[in-house]
Amino acid sequence: MAPVVFRAATEADLAAIVALLADDPLGSSREVAGAEPDARYRDAFAAMTRDPNQLLAVADRDGRVIGCLQLSFIPGLSRHGMWRGQIESVRVASNERGTGVGCAMFAWAIDMCRARGCGLVQLTTDKRRPEARAFYEALGFTASHEGMKLGL
Amino acid sequence: MAPVVFRAATEADLAAIVALLADDPLGSSREVAGAEPDARYRDAFAAMTRDPNQLLAVADRDGRVIGCLQLSFIPGLSRHGMWRGQIESVRVASNERGTGVGCAMFAWAIDMCRARGCGLVQLTTDKRRPEARAFYEALGFTASHEGMKLGL
Repeated sequence: MAPVVFRAATEADLAAIVALLADDPLGSSREVAGAEPDARYRDAFAAMTRDPNQLLAVADRDGRVIGCLQLSFIPGLSRHGMWRGQIESVRVASNERGTGVGCAMFAWAIDMCRARGCGLVQLTTDKRRPEARAFYEALGFTASHEGMKLGL
Repeated sequence: MAPVVFRAATEADLAAIVALLADDPLGSSREVAGAEPDARYRDAFAAMTRDPNQLLAVADRDGRVIGCLQLSFIPGLSRHGMWRGQIESVRVASNERGTGVGCAMFAWAIDMCRARGCGLVQLTTDKRRPEARAFYEALGFTASHEGMKLGL
């Protein structure tokens, strides 16, 4: 099997990333996948590309996108002006799960946070995904906070 | 009593904001308050000011900083390229609690998120602050997620 490479996403990856986001029990009702990404996804991709504190990344095996995540680097005053790395929209292709790709992708993402000088990595995970929480705990994350959302 | 005004923070507010962050059971061991803000806080303030997706805001009563919060506007692909508003480092001066300032500050912050086109407002709250969770629930937030942190 070809090795997995982690890299910044390009616009050519967009349809594959949206397909990954949609291939999920919670995501299937939220996303519109297709060969041509919807204009709203293209606009969001452009906004992420313009912002040097956003990094949309993919796991690429032999030219195929098999995983993705978004990193946000957030400056703040708390804890002596500590930067935070925030991880969002994590997905691994269903046929690639259990191969260690998720673990390797997280190790890469945490290294990126360290390289950007972050003192903390944070994420929220839906309580309906207990297996995701167990995965993050195995990586050393602690469920010390409530993750609260308000739809507008 | 003079009315409360919500506005973007300026560098002149920095010492007062750090004092608010430190005046808290969890924050007191994390922050270094003083008349002259530490260089790390000044650097963090500069990073926030440079980033158009960060807004450090204060509640100002008659020229005194009596509350603060940080808003981060985060672009993303999930949910049709929805923007999120994220709220962090919320504090209200101890002698101003129970006056409705927190509620008014959140109403203002949520309006700012709406004005920026966000579809969701999110925050995490330490599980050791059950009264904070109750405050956010009263504002309509749902504790649907685990908030997970990893120190680097």
